[in-house]
Amino acid sequence: MDAKLIVDEVRLTPILVSDPPLLNTQGVHQPHTPRLVVEVVTRGGVSGLGETYGDGVHLDVARPLAEALPGRPVTDVNGLFALAEEAGDVPRHGTDPGVDASGLRGVRTADKLRLSVVSAFETACLDALGRTLGLPVHALLGGKVRDEVEYSAYLFHKWAGTDDWGEALDPAGIVAQARRFDRAYGFRSFKLKGGVFEPAREIAAIRALADAFPGRPLRLDPNGAWTVRTSLAVARALKDVLEYLEDPASGTAAMAEIAARTDVPLATNMCVTTFEEIPEAFAAGAVRIVLCDHHYWGGLHRTRELAALCRTYGVGLSMHSNTHLGISLAAMTQVAATLPGLRHACDTHYPWQTEDVVTPRPVFRAGRLTVSDAPGLGVDLDREALATLHRRWLADDGTLRNRDDAAAMRRIHPNWTPTRW
Amino acid sequence: MDAKLIVDEVRLTPILVSDPPLLNTQGVHQPHTPRLVVEVVTRGGVSGLGETYGDGVHLDVARPLAEALPGRPVTDVNGLFALAEEAGDVPRHGTDPGVDASGLRGVRTADKLRLSVVSAFETACLDALGRTLGLPVHALLGGKVRDEVEYSAYLFHKWAGTDDWGEALDPAGIVAQARRFDRAYGFRSFKLKGGVFEPAREIAAIRALADAFPGRPLRLDPNGAWTVRTSLAVARALKDVLEYLEDPASGTAAMAEIAARTDVPLATNMCVTTFEEIPEAFAAGAVRIVLCDHHYWGGLHRTRELAALCRTYGVGLSMHSNTHLGISLAAMTQVAATLPGLRHACDTHYPWQTEDVVTPRPVFRAGRLTVSDAPGLGVDLDREALATLHRRWLADDGTLRNRDDAAAMRRIHPNWTPTRW
Repeated sequence: MDAKLIVDEVRLTPILVSDPPLLNTQGVHQPHTPRLVVEVVTRGGVSGLGETYGDGVHLDVARPLAEALPGRPVTDVNGLFALAEEAGDVPRHGTDPGVDASGLRGVRTADKLRLSVVSAFETACLDALGRTLGLPVHALLGGKVRDEVEYSAYLFHKWAGTDDWGEALDPAGIVAQARRFDRAYGFRSFKLKGGVFEPAREIAAIRALADAFPGRPLRLDPNGAWTVRTSLAVARALKDVLEYLEDPASGTAAMAEIAARTDVPLATNMCVTTFEEIPEAFAAGAVRIVLCDHHYWGGLHRTRELAALCRTYGVGLSMHSNTHLGISLAAMTQVAATLPGLRHACDTHYPWQTEDVVTPRPVFRAGRLTVSDAPGLGVDLDREALATLHRRWLADDGTLRNRDDAAAMRRIHPNWTPTRW
Repeated sequence: MDAKLIVDEVRLTPILVSDPPLLNTQGVHQPHTPRLVVEVVTRGGVSGLGETYGDGVHLDVARPLAEALPGRPVTDVNGLFALAEEAGDVPRHGTDPGVDASGLRGVRTADKLRLSVVSAFETACLDALGRTLGLPVHALLGGKVRDEVEYSAYLFHKWAGTDDWGEALDPAGIVAQARRFDRAYGFRSFKLKGGVFEPAREIAAIRALADAFPGRPLRLDPNGAWTVRTSLAVARALKDVLEYLEDPASGTAAMAEIAARTDVPLATNMCVTTFEEIPEAFAAGAVRIVLCDHHYWGGLHRTRELAALCRTYGVGLSMHSNTHLGISLAAMTQVAATLPGLRHACDTHYPWQTEDVVTPRPVFRAGRLTVSDAPGLGVDLDREALATLHRRWLADDGTLRNRDDAAAMRRIHPNWTPTRW
C-alpha cells in the first residue's frame, strides 16, 4: 500500500456548538451541544474530516481508536469496527440502561456507541482517501445516482433565545417559522418536532401548515411520546395531509399495532436504529420508512447496506438528523447521492446551526444541496472556528459536555418531567 | 472527473472454453462452454477486466451496454444497471420461461440477464479504477478483512473425456477424485454435485467421502432434483456428516418444508438468486446459507449488500460457482476478502478449467487463495490465449455458443430427459 494512504495521526477535537432552545419530548436543547471532530491525517500530509456525537462516552471510545489507527491504510474502513472493539472496552457508564439522551435511539449498548464513533473515523478516512486520489466520496461508494439531494425543513416549537428566530409555541408561530424556511432555503417538505404540547395543539399546527402550504409533504415526530390510542387519533385527524407520522409511540410492538390500524405511513429513527432491530420490525410491518443516520449505523458503507435492506423489503428510506455541522451534512449528501430510490427529503437540523467548522457554509437552493464532485467530502476545515469552539468546550465546567435535554429543561423548570400523552 | 478515469472503449470477446464432461441433473457439460470477457479501456490507456456468462442472450445485452459506456467514469458503477436498461431491451428470446440452462437460477427474467452482464462491466470498471489508482479492488470495497479466502473441492460424477481426470461414476471414483483435489490443492471441504444418479448411490458417495476424510465439511447438491420426501430421506441418512445440503428440492416452498423437518442446514443458489426472492425465503426459514454468485447478483457491490442482508437475518453466506475463468475467480476472491462472517469455504469450478485467459494461473494452497494486494483484480490478460479461445468461438457452427447441458447429453443419449427422484 502506498505510504501516502497510511494514517499518520488522528486528531480528536471536542467542541461545543451553539444551539437554539428547541423543544422536544426529552426537554430542550442545551445552549451548547457537544460534537466531536475527527481528523485523520495521512503520511502524505492529507487530512480527512469526520464528525459525530461528542458526549463523554463518545470521547472515551474515540480516544483508544485514535491511538490504534496510525499505521493502517485509510482504505481499510471495513476493519474499523473490529479495531474499535480491540482498542478498548466501552466504559461501564457508557452503557447505563435508559434512553440515549443525545440520540433517542433506545437503550444504549457498547456496539451502538462504537458505531457512532466509528462513523466519524470512516467518514474521515474516506475524505482523506478521496482527497488523496482526487475523487469525491460518492465515487468511492460506487458513484452518485443523482446530482442534488433534497432536504426538509425541520420545524420546532421553541423559546425565544439569543437566536433571531424568536418564539414558536403555537400553530401561528410554527407557520411563521415554516415561511422563513421556505423563503430562505426553498424546502418543499416540512417536519414538525412534536410530543411537546398536547396532541390537539400539534394537530392544529400541522393543519395550519397544510393550509399555508397546500400539497406540501408534512411530517410530525413526537419521538415516541404518545400511546397507541393517541397515535391513532392523531393519524385519523391528519391522514389527508401527512406524508408520514414519525415514531408516534415507543417500541416496535406499539408501532406495529398503530401501523395495522392506519393507512398513514409510519417512519422511525427510534425502533430501527441497528441491523439487529430490522428483522422483527420489518416482519411486524411496524415501519414503512426508516430514517437512517449514518452516525448511528456506523458510517457511509453501512448506510448503503441499510438502503439495500430497505429496498429488498419494500421499506422506504430517508435520513434522520440530530444537531450536526457541515462535515456531517456533506457526508449525508455524499452517501444520499449514491442511494437509488431515495424518495423522501432528508431531515437536517443544519439551518439551526449558526456556527460551523467548515467553510464556506453549504447553501440550500430549492431545498436541495448540490452533490459536490470535489475531492473527498468537498468541505474545508475552518481551523479558527474549530479552535474557538474547542476553547468553549475546554472552558465548560462539565455542565454541557454531555447533552442532556431534560437537565437543560430542569435548569428552567426544576420539576419538569417528560409527558406521555 | 480526471480524464484518466473516463471510459474510452469497451471490448467484448466471446470465447469457448474447454470443459470436461461433468454430469449434473440438467445433463452434461458441453465440451466447450461460452464465456464473455469484457475489457473496459480508459482514456488513460488502462484496461480493466470482467468475465461473465457468454450465451447469445448475454451478448445481446452486453453489446448495447458496451456502446453506451464510453464517456462515463469508471467510478460510476452504481449507475450501470440503469444504463443497461436504457441501452437496450432484452431480446424476447432472452426471457423465455423455463430454467436458465447455464445458471440454474429459476425462470429467466430481463433483470436477471442484465444483472449477469452488468456484473462483468462492474468488475472491469473496478479493475480499471484500481489499476489507475494503484489500489486492489478490495480496497475499493472498503478493504479486506482477511488475507486468504478458502475454497472447496467441487466433485462431479463424470465421464472419461479428453481431460486426465478419468471417469467417476461411483463412490470409489468420487473418493479418488477427492483425493486428487486434496493432494493437488489442499481443499478441506468437499462438495459433490448430485442429482445425477439414484439418491442411494449419492448417499453412498458421501458416506465414502466421510470415511476417507473424517471430519471434513461435506456438501451435496442435486440442483433441486429431489422431492421433499427424498430430500428428507437423504438428510436423515447423512445428517451426521453433512455441512449442508444444497438445493435438495426446487422452490422456496419445498425448501421450507424440508428445512422445517431436518436439522441439516439447507443452502441455495436456486431459490434465492435475486434480492426480490429474499423476503419470502427468509421469512419461511427455507435456507440457512445463501450461495452468492456475483454474476447473478449484479457485481461486487451488490454481493456486499447481499452479505449485509444475510448477516442481518442470521443467514450464512458462501459462494456459488459455475464454469468460470481466472478473472471471475479473482473477483470472487477480492469481494470475499471484504465480507465479515464468511464461515463456509466458497465453491469454485476453477480446477476443472485447463484453459484460462489470465496468466499466471492462480494457485490454491491448503485450499486457499491469497488475496492479492496488487492494483485492480491482480490478474493479467493473456491476449494470445484470449485470441485462441475467441477463434474457437468464431469457428463454432452455433452448437456450443449457448450452453445447454441437456442438448449436450442428448447428443450422446438422444432420448435423455432429466430425472426427478
